[in-house]
Amino acid sequence: MEQELKQFDVAQLAHVEIYTPVPEETVWFFKELLGMTEVEREGRSVYLRSYEDHYHHSLKVTERNEPGLGHVSWRASSKNALERRVKDLEKSGAGKGWIDGDLGHGAAYQFVTPDNHNMEILWDVDYYQCSDDKKSPLKSRPEKRPITGIPVRRIDHVNLMSSNVNRNKEHLMNDLGFKLREHVVKNDGDEIGAWLSVSPLVHELAYMEDATTSEQGLGRLHHLAFWYGFPQHLHDLSDVLTEHGIEIEAGPLKHGVSQALCMYVIEPGGNRIELFGDSGYLIFDPDWQPVKWNEDEVEQAIIHYGAPLPDSYFKYGTPNVKAPVKN
Amino acid sequence: MEQELKQFDVAQLAHVEIYTPVPEETVWFFKELLGMTEVEREGRSVYLRSYEDHYHHSLKVTERNEPGLGHVSWRASSKNALERRVKDLEKSGAGKGWIDGDLGHGAAYQFVTPDNHNMEILWDVDYYQCSDDKKSPLKSRPEKRPITGIPVRRIDHVNLMSSNVNRNKEHLMNDLGFKLREHVVKNDGDEIGAWLSVSPLVHELAYMEDATTSEQGLGRLHHLAFWYGFPQHLHDLSDVLTEHGIEIEAGPLKHGVSQALCMYVIEPGGNRIELFGDSGYLIFDPDWQPVKWNEDEVEQAIIHYGAPLPDSYFKYGTPNVKAPVKN
Amino acid sequence: MEQELKQFDVAQLAHVEIYTPVPEETVWFFKELLGMTEVEREGRSVYLRSYEDHYHHSLKVTERNEPGLGHVSWRASSKNALERRVKDLEKSGAGKGWIDGDLGHGAAYQFVTPDNHNMEILWDVDYYQCSDDKKSPLKSRPEKRPITGIPVRRIDHVNLMSSNVNRNKEHLMNDLGFKLREHVVKNDGDEIGAWLSVSPLVHELAYMEDATTSEQGLGRLHHLAFWYGFPQHLHDLSDVLTEHGIEIEAGPLKHGVSQALCMYVIEPGGNRIELFGDSGYLIFDPDWQPVKWNEDEVEQAIIHYGAPLPDSYFKYGTPNVKAPVKN
Amino acid sequence: MEQELKQFDVAQLAHVEIYTPVPEETVWFFKELLGMTEVEREGRSVYLRSYEDHYHHSLKVTERNEPGLGHVSWRASSKNALERRVKDLEKSGAGKGWIDGDLGHGAAYQFVTPDNHNMEILWDVDYYQCSDDKKSPLKSRPEKRPITGIPVRRIDHVNLMSSNVNRNKEHLMNDLGFKLREHVVKNDGDEIGAWLSVSPLVHELAYMEDATTSEQGLGRLHHLAFWYGFPQHLHDLSDVLTEHGIEIEAGPLKHGVSQALCMYVIEPGGNRIELFGDSGYLIFDPDWQPVKWNEDEVEQAIIHYGAPLPDSYFKYGTPNVKAPVKN
Repeated sequence: MEQELKQFDVAQLAHVEIYTPVPEETVWFFKELLGMTEVEREGRSVYLRSYEDHYHHSLKVTERNEPGLGHVSWRASSKNALERRVKDLEKSGAGKGWIDGDLGHGAAYQFVTPDNHNMEILWDVDYYQCSDDKKSPLKSRPEKRPITGIPVRRIDHVNLMSSNVNRNKEHLMNDLGFKLREHVVKNDGDEIGAWLSVSPLVHELAYMEDATTSEQGLGRLHHLAFWYGFPQHLHDLSDVLTEHGIEIEAGPLKHGVSQALCMYVIEPGGNRIELFGDSGYLIFDPDWQPVKWNEDEVEQAIIHYGAPLPDSYFKYGTPNVKAPVKN
Repeated sequence: MEQELKQFDVAQLAHVEIYTPVPEETVWFFKELLGMTEVEREGRSVYLRSYEDHYHHSLKVTERNEPGLGHVSWRASSKNALERRVKDLEKSGAGKGWIDGDLGHGAAYQFVTPDNHNMEILWDVDYYQCSDDKKSPLKSRPEKRPITGIPVRRIDHVNLMSSNVNRNKEHLMNDLGFKLREHVVKNDGDEIGAWLSVSPLVHELAYMEDATTSEQGLGRLHHLAFWYGFPQHLHDLSDVLTEHGIEIEAGPLKHGVSQALCMYVIEPGGNRIELFGDSGYLIFDPDWQPVKWNEDEVEQAIIHYGAPLPDSYFKYGTPNVKAPVKN
Repeated sequence: MEQELKQFDVAQLAHVEIYTPVPEETVWFFKELLGMTEVEREGRSVYLRSYEDHYHHSLKVTERNEPGLGHVSWRASSKNALERRVKDLEKSGAGKGWIDGDLGHGAAYQFVTPDNHNMEILWDVDYYQCSDDKKSPLKSRPEKRPITGIPVRRIDHVNLMSSNVNRNKEHLMNDLGFKLREHVVKNDGDEIGAWLSVSPLVHELAYMEDATTSEQGLGRLHHLAFWYGFPQHLHDLSDVLTEHGIEIEAGPLKHGVSQALCMYVIEPGGNRIELFGDSGYLIFDPDWQPVKWNEDEVEQAIIHYGAPLPDSYFKYGTPNVKAPVKN
Repeated sequence: MEQELKQFDVAQLAHVEIYTPVPEETVWFFKELLGMTEVEREGRSVYLRSYEDHYHHSLKVTERNEPGLGHVSWRASSKNALERRVKDLEKSGAGKGWIDGDLGHGAAYQFVTPDNHNMEILWDVDYYQCSDDKKSPLKSRPEKRPITGIPVRRIDHVNLMSSNVNRNKEHLMNDLGFKLREHVVKNDGDEIGAWLSVSPLVHELAYMEDATTSEQGLGRLHHLAFWYGFPQHLHDLSDVLTEHGIEIEAGPLKHGVSQALCMYVIEPGGNRIELFGDSGYLIFDPDWQPVKWNEDEVEQAIIHYGAPLPDSYFKYGTPNVKAPVKN
């Protein structure tokens, strides 16, 4: 039964920490253009959330000399589930140990992926409590929809660059119970990309091949995604970004993989942010067979319709390392 | 651990059977206006599906002298999960026994709710296989989007009228592991409505108080819902329905409960059909506390914005019994 | 040829002045929720515009003890056109005389409609000039799209309550060259409503029967409309209004007349504001025959789909006089 | 006054004829995917219309060995206006003479532009009369919205490739009273593109520089545009086109010029078709100063946001001549 339970032990993506060399500009971007709420500041970090994120924060922005991923935080389905996952992480050697917590949550167990992306898993979280004047009559919404910018509704997923998609994917499946939903596979069997989830979402995490890494994983971030749910908001945001000098790298476009209607933006600190403009499709079939796209279907997998992706999409990540390109 | 697993044992709403006295008109409505595909006919039944429903059918339309609910079919998360649920259904006395199957699925265990709604739970399903010319380049989509009508994407949920919301809710929670997501509660503690789910959806099933039932539950259908995901399609469909003489009972409107942007339509056979125009909100928090709307918040719960609901919404169900109204 | 030219002599609705007893709240509504820009203040008036209104202002909000219409301002197609219209206004007796101008425009000729609605016609206007940091890369847009509220794009039309729709309609057609686009006609030949325009828009002005007026026209405002062009923005605004305690009187809904997808809101000062969520239909046919809705088609004319209009829609206007109801 | 009237003498784009080597496929595209109605067939021509086009047809598809433009038909504002325009066309030497008419309209005066694009101007038109079962309760709509494909609402504009934008633009302004709304101008003063209209639309006709023409104009078609008015329909159509193997050349994207949210598609016969997904902006200012984009602003003029335009967009037209490229 423990094996049966594993696939349900991680409940969701709780929050992500990103680094930025220009915290004021990065925070301005998330607050003024994406309509996120600043919850708290401490040291070199600012804690932010979308208006339908329920916990203390879903985004932690930390000042650093280079942009990139701080860490990814997963919430377990229960205290027991957390213990089961920690046991497996310890066994596999990925585990690093417990921390007491951070603003917004209690004890968390830290681990590292084969590619050196820092992650943690936790149970104790603080719920966001807004002031009375910000309470929404929509009781399932923890705060009124902001009237600033084009406000994102919630955090959606993270996409990480990987020196070895297969190895990193296996780790998440074995230690954390993620399910493979879609993948793009080369003729030699290597995976170019893998989309994994613990819920009916197609992915809370994707791994994409990092053409510029050396053998040793570099822990780079491809993008962090926030969710709108409505296509018009991508158009609205595109208008706003263009008028405020923020680079739209690609989109609006629709992916074949995940059916995401989306766009990609480079925030002032250099990190790529995806905005998700519809719900994509949801997977309720408990016996879902991963969608496999072959090497000759890559284009179809990447673009169902809309803008082609620029070269930068396949090479640029943060930090923007100048490592030798493979092959 | 069996207790921990229970909440994951039912995976999804598999299909719903409805009755209609005018099968040709009802099937015309679902095929020509809602863009559903007819898969097969047998006896007095027509099997249909939406273009992103993965199984043989999600809707079975059966001829009968009166409209109403045939049965609701749930898919378990695994063969083991099915066995666990059957054991509990047998224990509680709700279970009726196994049937060999139907077109599109294998053995199913039938049971009845306290209010006499017929249900079944199953594992073995047939996947829909379209002809080559209907294959979509979107590999997660089992068939091209139809170019007829305003095609719905998938089945979403069912809403049943109940003589005793609390008793029926408890049954689903105890025997099938449903989680309570939202409810409307009268000052005397009785529930007017309860929204339950097994996934991040706010509901695959809702119970609403049936003001016209006698003590004995009448097994009436309030509505069956299909999902669009995009608000524009509600506008498109409204236009099409108005031009084809189909009654729009209410909407487009947005509920407080479930944040559904939706509309209600009476299909030619008399059953109420809901169309869901966005993704609502999704519940990923494993420790979700049910949203409780008090008696004095009913209006806010029902309408966040848009059309008020007509009186019929609270009284009409199928079959359209003329039972004495309570109180 | 003067007769041929007449229909082209008025080019557009330039601006509207409304009265409010609570100017701070009214201005807050237009600025914070509808995203309008405050251009200037003078005396008891605040001048505002939408981000795609090209002139100094499209809305003048003036403090008064009661809400209502200040005046409606039309821009002529040329200096010559202005002179031609003034000649006809003088001839018909509607003319009141020239004023030197106001903030944002030069000399204007004032006149009064049979129902005592104050209007003016002018040629000289000031164009809005934004500061460099507000310049949009979209050269046809006079200012960046605001990132506050759900910003309206431009002024659209005005709807006035009338003691005698026919007489008021004839005046605009005869003196100003308006064309009748649609009307609702009672069995006795009286008009309940008339929609008139000088451009391909279905209306820059509508007259609706005022059931509460005495014989003498009361110059009441039914509503002033601003334009979004996109349906989603009605949903966005509905959400925002509900959360900020602003009454949505009706909608989103779609009218049969004018095909407007729209909603109606009461601003804090008491005036009804319409938000127009698509482009409606445009009339390019130079030989357009007015669409006539008979008495038994009123419902169909008013609602193509969506919320029924509440009783207040047919009775309430500003000022909210308590005159005896006709019949 | 005749000079004053000239700008109002042409009322609208009435219809366009295109050539196709594969009429069955071309007609299938317009009927099944774009939801247009086939009105009549005669000889090698099929007459089609969108559901909100009021006349007999807005599109004539004629079989020919190569794709391209048949002719463009303008409707005058009145019989008098027609006479005035014919007089000027005769005077300028562009006029070719009267024809008796075609299916759907009476006498028309033919003329040719400096670049050899065939055009006509007319007054007498037949209105489309649908059968009773196709009548819409929307009285301003000449036919129910089709339930096939993603139906376009009306014809919008035509874009022609030109060996000399300036000369062709001047011709339309001088002989037909078109107004220049936007243009892109090279440093040497030559125009790369010009957008002209007779109504508040930014263009019923645009001229774009044809890099492949010789000195003598080749009368090529860049694209013909139909109008949706709603952004979602571009997404819906993109999905449908991708699934039916129709090439999407570009988009959805938003132009700087005209603020068009649009996409470009190559119909099976080879002609480029634009779909217009919102209303763009409308010009009501009678003293509108043409928006001028300089050579260094071309990119901004072409793309406000969304997909970059492929090289083919600037070179491909119909017929697909292999003339030497200038420079």
